[in-house]
Amino acid sequence: MNELRITTERHTQLLDITPQVREAVRDTNGASAVLVYVPHTTAGLTINEHADPMVARDFEMALEKLVPEAWGWKHIEEGEENAPSHPRASLMGPQVLVPLRDGELALGTWQGIYLWEHRTSPHRRKVTVTILGE
Amino acid sequence: MNELRITTERHTQLLDITPQVREAVRDTNGASAVLVYVPHTTAGLTINEHADPMVARDFEMALEKLVPEAWGWKHIEEGEENAPSHPRASLMGPQVLVPLRDGELALGTWQGIYLWEHRTSPHRRKVTVTILGE
Amino acid sequence: MNELRITTERHTQLLDITPQVREAVRDTNGASAVLVYVPHTTAGLTINEHADPMVARDFEMALEKLVPEAWGWKHIEEGEENAPSHPRASLMGPQVLVPLRDGELALGTWQGIYLWEHRTSPHRRKVTVTILGE
Repeated sequence: MNELRITTERHTQLLDITPQVREAVRDTNGASAVLVYVPHTTAGLTINEHADPMVARDFEMALEKLVPEAWGWKHIEEGEENAPSHPRASLMGPQVLVPLRDGELALGTWQGIYLWEHRTSPHRRKVTVTILGE
Repeated sequence: MNELRITTERHTQLLDITPQVREAVRDTNGASAVLVYVPHTTAGLTINEHADPMVARDFEMALEKLVPEAWGWKHIEEGEENAPSHPRASLMGPQVLVPLRDGELALGTWQGIYLWEHRTSPHRRKVTVTILGE
Repeated sequence: MNELRITTERHTQLLDITPQVREAVRDTNGASAVLVYVPHTTAGLTINEHADPMVARDFEMALEKLVPEAWGWKHIEEGEENAPSHPRASLMGPQVLVPLRDGELALGTWQGIYLWEHRTSPHRRKVTVTILGE
């Protein structure tokens, strides 16, 4: 299992981590797939288009509209308002699983792997990369 | 493949099943990840914070708001109103995949594995646990 | 890795591809799970009920309501309005992972595997099928 460390910069941020994952799966010939996993409850992972950065900006806006701040949350964290961050994180999920072909990520032409920051105070995040066999 | 049986108690319920999954992956040294899977269409799985129970209560409220009863559904089940339960189930998904480290679930400090009950009449649910290798 | 080709017919369409996936996992005795993956950013996969076709029609309606066209998107594709298609695709995800039992998909009685078409102009889509071992 490889561990990546990614520093996020703002609340509700989509951050392209494809290069880091690509590097982490190097020399894995013969493996079938890679599990990318985030061990956090206010961060997550998603696969989407990473050619036009506007797609990520749109998506950040959409997720904040889907699960708005104003829904009357009961969970309280001192000094932070992370209640909506939890369902947002689960809607996106803490993991992606990508097939490997000849030791390379078999992503589509337009697909990239994004880390989600959902927390109000951005953070240094851990991402684990686990190789799965045939 | 291991099978767990979990009894749910109410409509739109998040139930922490981390201890049962932890038990099911015992003695799996050398394995890479575990696939937890629900073979139902009105139940599902999610990973989220399980320290403060209010996070789960908030999430149940949020999912019912995201996909409300009042959307004019066409699917009819005699004696039950499960039409919104189906998209709710797919938004959350029927599976989670968690990496293993030295035969233990490599969950984050705050992460737990939850079973979702989406059906109007709660149920005895099946959850399968499948080990994936390197 | 097996590749399927599926032709979609309309925007926001759920298409049952269970028979094609079942065929692709034939003769995989001893394998643990199958990863079904879509290398597209405006298509996806989901598992849901496929007995009553109304469940799929309801779900198509629900996804268009969840992420509506009218949200003021910034991403522009010439001749197409696919901005909402991207978050819709990520909400559903580009992959499903199904356990195998004796070389057969261990789906529940009512579960089927669906391909999502989110793009305004339907398309010929690629779906990859990757076997994961124990």
